[in-house]
Amino acid sequence: MEPLDPHLLTSINSPEDLRKLSRNELPQVCHELRDFIIDSVSHNPGHFGASLGVVELTVALHYVYKTPYDQLVWDVGHQAYGHKILTGRRDLFHTNRKMGGISGFPRRYESEYDAFGVGHSSTSISAALGMAEASKLKNENRKVVAIIGDGAMTGGMAFEGLNNAGFLKSDILVILNDNNMAIDPNVGGMSQYLLSITRSQTYNRLKDEVWEGLGKLRGLGPLARRAVQKMEGALKSLLLHQSNLFEGLNFRYFGPVDGHDVLQLTSVLADLREIKGPKLLHVITKKGKGFPEAEINQTKFHAPGKFDKLTGKIYSCGCELEKAPKFQNVFGETIVELAEMNEKIVGITPAMPSGCSLNIMMQKMPHRAFDVGIAEQHAVTFAAGLATQGMIPFCNIYSTFMQRAYDQVIHDVALQNLHVVFCIDRGGLVGEDGATHHGVFDLAYMRTLPNMVVAAPMDEPELRNMMYTAQLEGYGPFSIRYPRGCGTTVNWRNPFEKIEPGTSRQLSEGSDLAILTIGKPGVFAQRAVKKLLREGLTVAHFDMRFVKPLDEVRLHHIFREFPKIITIEEGTVTGGFGSAVAEFKSAYNYSSQLKIMGIPDRFIEHGTIEQLYKECGLDAESIFREALIMAGR
Amino acid sequence: MEPLDPHLLTSINSPEDLRKLSRNELPQVCHELRDFIIDSVSHNPGHFGASLGVVELTVALHYVYKTPYDQLVWDVGHQAYGHKILTGRRDLFHTNRKMGGISGFPRRYESEYDAFGVGHSSTSISAALGMAEASKLKNENRKVVAIIGDGAMTGGMAFEGLNNAGFLKSDILVILNDNNMAIDPNVGGMSQYLLSITRSQTYNRLKDEVWEGLGKLRGLGPLARRAVQKMEGALKSLLLHQSNLFEGLNFRYFGPVDGHDVLQLTSVLADLREIKGPKLLHVITKKGKGFPEAEINQTKFHAPGKFDKLTGKIYSCGCELEKAPKFQNVFGETIVELAEMNEKIVGITPAMPSGCSLNIMMQKMPHRAFDVGIAEQHAVTFAAGLATQGMIPFCNIYSTFMQRAYDQVIHDVALQNLHVVFCIDRGGLVGEDGATHHGVFDLAYMRTLPNMVVAAPMDEPELRNMMYTAQLEGYGPFSIRYPRGCGTTVNWRNPFEKIEPGTSRQLSEGSDLAILTIGKPGVFAQRAVKKLLREGLTVAHFDMRFVKPLDEVRLHHIFREFPKIITIEEGTVTGGFGSAVAEFKSAYNYSSQLKIMGIPDRFIEHGTIEQLYKECGLDAESIFREALIMAGR
Repeated sequence: MEPLDPHLLTSINSPEDLRKLSRNELPQVCHELRDFIIDSVSHNPGHFGASLGVVELTVALHYVYKTPYDQLVWDVGHQAYGHKILTGRRDLFHTNRKMGGISGFPRRYESEYDAFGVGHSSTSISAALGMAEASKLKNENRKVVAIIGDGAMTGGMAFEGLNNAGFLKSDILVILNDNNMAIDPNVGGMSQYLLSITRSQTYNRLKDEVWEGLGKLRGLGPLARRAVQKMEGALKSLLLHQSNLFEGLNFRYFGPVDGHDVLQLTSVLADLREIKGPKLLHVITKKGKGFPEAEINQTKFHAPGKFDKLTGKIYSCGCELEKAPKFQNVFGETIVELAEMNEKIVGITPAMPSGCSLNIMMQKMPHRAFDVGIAEQHAVTFAAGLATQGMIPFCNIYSTFMQRAYDQVIHDVALQNLHVVFCIDRGGLVGEDGATHHGVFDLAYMRTLPNMVVAAPMDEPELRNMMYTAQLEGYGPFSIRYPRGCGTTVNWRNPFEKIEPGTSRQLSEGSDLAILTIGKPGVFAQRAVKKLLREGLTVAHFDMRFVKPLDEVRLHHIFREFPKIITIEEGTVTGGFGSAVAEFKSAYNYSSQLKIMGIPDRFIEHGTIEQLYKECGLDAESIFREALIMAGR
Repeated sequence: MEPLDPHLLTSINSPEDLRKLSRNELPQVCHELRDFIIDSVSHNPGHFGASLGVVELTVALHYVYKTPYDQLVWDVGHQAYGHKILTGRRDLFHTNRKMGGISGFPRRYESEYDAFGVGHSSTSISAALGMAEASKLKNENRKVVAIIGDGAMTGGMAFEGLNNAGFLKSDILVILNDNNMAIDPNVGGMSQYLLSITRSQTYNRLKDEVWEGLGKLRGLGPLARRAVQKMEGALKSLLLHQSNLFEGLNFRYFGPVDGHDVLQLTSVLADLREIKGPKLLHVITKKGKGFPEAEINQTKFHAPGKFDKLTGKIYSCGCELEKAPKFQNVFGETIVELAEMNEKIVGITPAMPSGCSLNIMMQKMPHRAFDVGIAEQHAVTFAAGLATQGMIPFCNIYSTFMQRAYDQVIHDVALQNLHVVFCIDRGGLVGEDGATHHGVFDLAYMRTLPNMVVAAPMDEPELRNMMYTAQLEGYGPFSIRYPRGCGTTVNWRNPFEKIEPGTSRQLSEGSDLAILTIGKPGVFAQRAVKKLLREGLTVAHFDMRFVKPLDEVRLHHIFREFPKIITIEEGTVTGGFGSAVAEFKSAYNYSSQLKIMGIPDRFIEHGTIEQLYKECGLDAESIFREALIMAGR
């Protein structure tokens, strides 16, 4: 497309400005908006493919709907870059995902156009329904739109929202943004169903089975022909109406329409805006649209990091990749090793095969590795079902998403003491994705459950050994949480060794202070311990390895020997590991001074992981300073 | 029906025995089984209507399927009495729900016929799918059946399970037990959809719109007639196939069939047993079938307590009902009072209007009270959506079911600091429903969340005042948890008074010991304090009222004044209220001895509430003894 006027986008400082443009300028706006996103994300990394896929939809929505009075609720929210750029944040967009900058997801505090904060999937319909019902109660004429991907539509709460909206007959538009992808290709009966609508199987069957019959009647003369024509119309509407899953839930179904035709989208939306009641518009889009490499490698370009916007080459992050592996890859490689030795092992991921590296197992042992879709609840109970038959499922769920399966962990696994291994990836701070994605609460919410083993490795060999241990006979629920990003061990393929639950290890000797760490902060503590030694302080550092069961033998020793103790965890200080140690201290009436370090009791925003460690006082320097204070220096 | 042989049931000690009978004896078995349930539940209270509704289905399933090799997964499980009676537990059935007796729900430890333990809703499809996939991996020919009600089908995880099963094409039969009821009448688009299938609207429309056209063609001669007949067949199958929501998810749909015709059920099941792949059988049943009063008053007879099996008269539970109200009714009446004063207030319940008493508001203010179906996740995010528009939702969810909405509480409410009031009913032990229903973890999992107020009233006036406080301007998320059953205050309609979050009250003065309670155990503590006084011990008793924020001013005072402190809560000792006090003690380096009393770190089985209080050491006598020990007596 030839640029008609290269400066349309720069004139848009709010949707008001957009709405002043004529309809035929919208394709150019889309063109410029897409270029802006490509340019910006290529050197300031973020989510990429999703926002490119909804450029036209975003422009059409703000053109037709009277935002911010009308409310747009973006599901997941990583597709909302275009929305942010059109709603007054174009000049701030270079701060996207940076500390103090704008968030990579809609956030209510950031803009009145961000109707609902988000990051997790499948919440949009419920939230939009709440808004629509509030509008009704307040006698307003506010319109509410939920924009949800076909991946997010596999999450059960999306169905709960649809089911309730259909019952209430609320005035709500659900836009199903169907690109047949989550981060990885979408799975599930629903995705096949959407594909079948798109491929018009209904019509095809209609043609094959019924039109054939009608055809025979056509030859019978003018009376029959007229009757047949009339019947064709009735049949078509009947079939279309009845054949639709969403119509079954009282939604009026419209589509599928081309999500990259901004003019058609504006007409359709303008029509739909005037139709009352629950409606669903099925929009077909392509993830990564307009950037050829992203269209082809959709998973890679979901959040590609820095890349060359001309060639599409993705730059390696460089860091320590060549030296130490990502924890997720240690998981991904190790589960294959273990599964080769133990045929009971199966792997489960809710739509995160590339994110958690279960894709390695899916490739090597496709029948023993399950991507169940964005469906954490199902993932856990599915694992429980497998465990009842003697299988040993490794269910890999990010810490923040495990919150969604909390009841299933309790009711289906812990209560029945089933041997399910929970591999909780992204435990702790995750950096740029921010508050919705930090894995802050899992140590606290898992340790409160009876029967549950709560383990957290400090490094790669420990992760491997904990995974090895967890698949040995005789265990019940066994959770292993580990962080996002790389570890510290270059030669990480250690031979397996059992780590008895409730045992810790001592990493340094000392008499001035005891430091008890769980998980990765042990590495920071090690650095602090070295530095403290240079100050003349000797510190006994213990990698506790298990929050539950606690190594009580070791704790008795520590509380008897050390008058000053620090606990450090990459999790909330409220109810977590330190809290467990405080309970122990109370239970046995020890008097040592105990300092609990961890993530403070507030939501932590986005930033680089180093910035956030510092903010939370988890970096080596902060530990060093705290230790000096404890030691009275 | 004339009894053919009144002793068929007593000869059935396992499904093997059942399968030895001839088909034509099955109606008599059903008759006897139904009588047995009515007789037993009339004097040993339990769930009633649900089991009566599936008598024929239960008999047919065990007759056709080779249990326990084949696996039956009962959703929710309160309908499994017939199943228990047929699987070797007839003579134990009088111990149902009693301490040491059999559980009111399927439990794996209880019987090899109980394939999956249950109590919460919507888990059966996921669990059954896990079993089916395990069977496939192990090359077994094991059949798996999930039996799920139309109420449970509104839970999102049921949809997640269907979606995944359809994708995997697993060999699984889902029986949709459609009685159009949860505990209260079922709601949601889905329930209307099921009704529409049942009422054959598809066929009716077909007749009206299309048959009319075909009819005109019938008169045209033999050739046309033949074509029309052929087409009718094609159309019928086309419409049936395409019109179905479940077929959309790759399930083969069969039904609806009469769930009270045991002979037809056995034929249908025998056929389905031989069909591979995901199948759904839609069975129409009547809750309470065979007991006229239960058929009419389905909600009342869901779990009626003791009743006269001849007249259907339900006996009042007697206890203190005339004196002090149930906490749930205090909630139900109070929210109406508050909503009359504050038009921003709305009420939300996920399918528990009679259980939580929101039915009072639903009757008086139908537009401001929402029953959203069995959909806790949606309930919470729906509340969040309402709150963004300035409404103040009171979202009432049982403690144990709130686990299912944990992520929504975190991600949609707490993170956005939205003003949603969570009324957490059934906080603490619930008695006969047992392990799946005790509300043990909420204090722990809520207090770990930033922005959250965690309150628990000791008595009815405090509940009212907390509800009043929670709806005042300026708050974010505010949770109030209270127990099942009756309180202690006869004149409970106190005028409203604000209770500042983070403030406690002192109930008795003393110097030997401080007792800090949260919630109802304060009542037991009061009794213990009186008894201790007779032993010459004076106890300062504080009703702390808030787990978060803690009354730190008071705590500083207590820790300075008292060398011995006991905390008491009706929640887990791991990470709960006592743990918060232990954190406080550590943070300020106090040395007082601290004893944390609460529910021990294991799953508690069923029994009377008094038995369970005793077992957990929460009764007045246990507190008395513990205090004596603390005081060195």
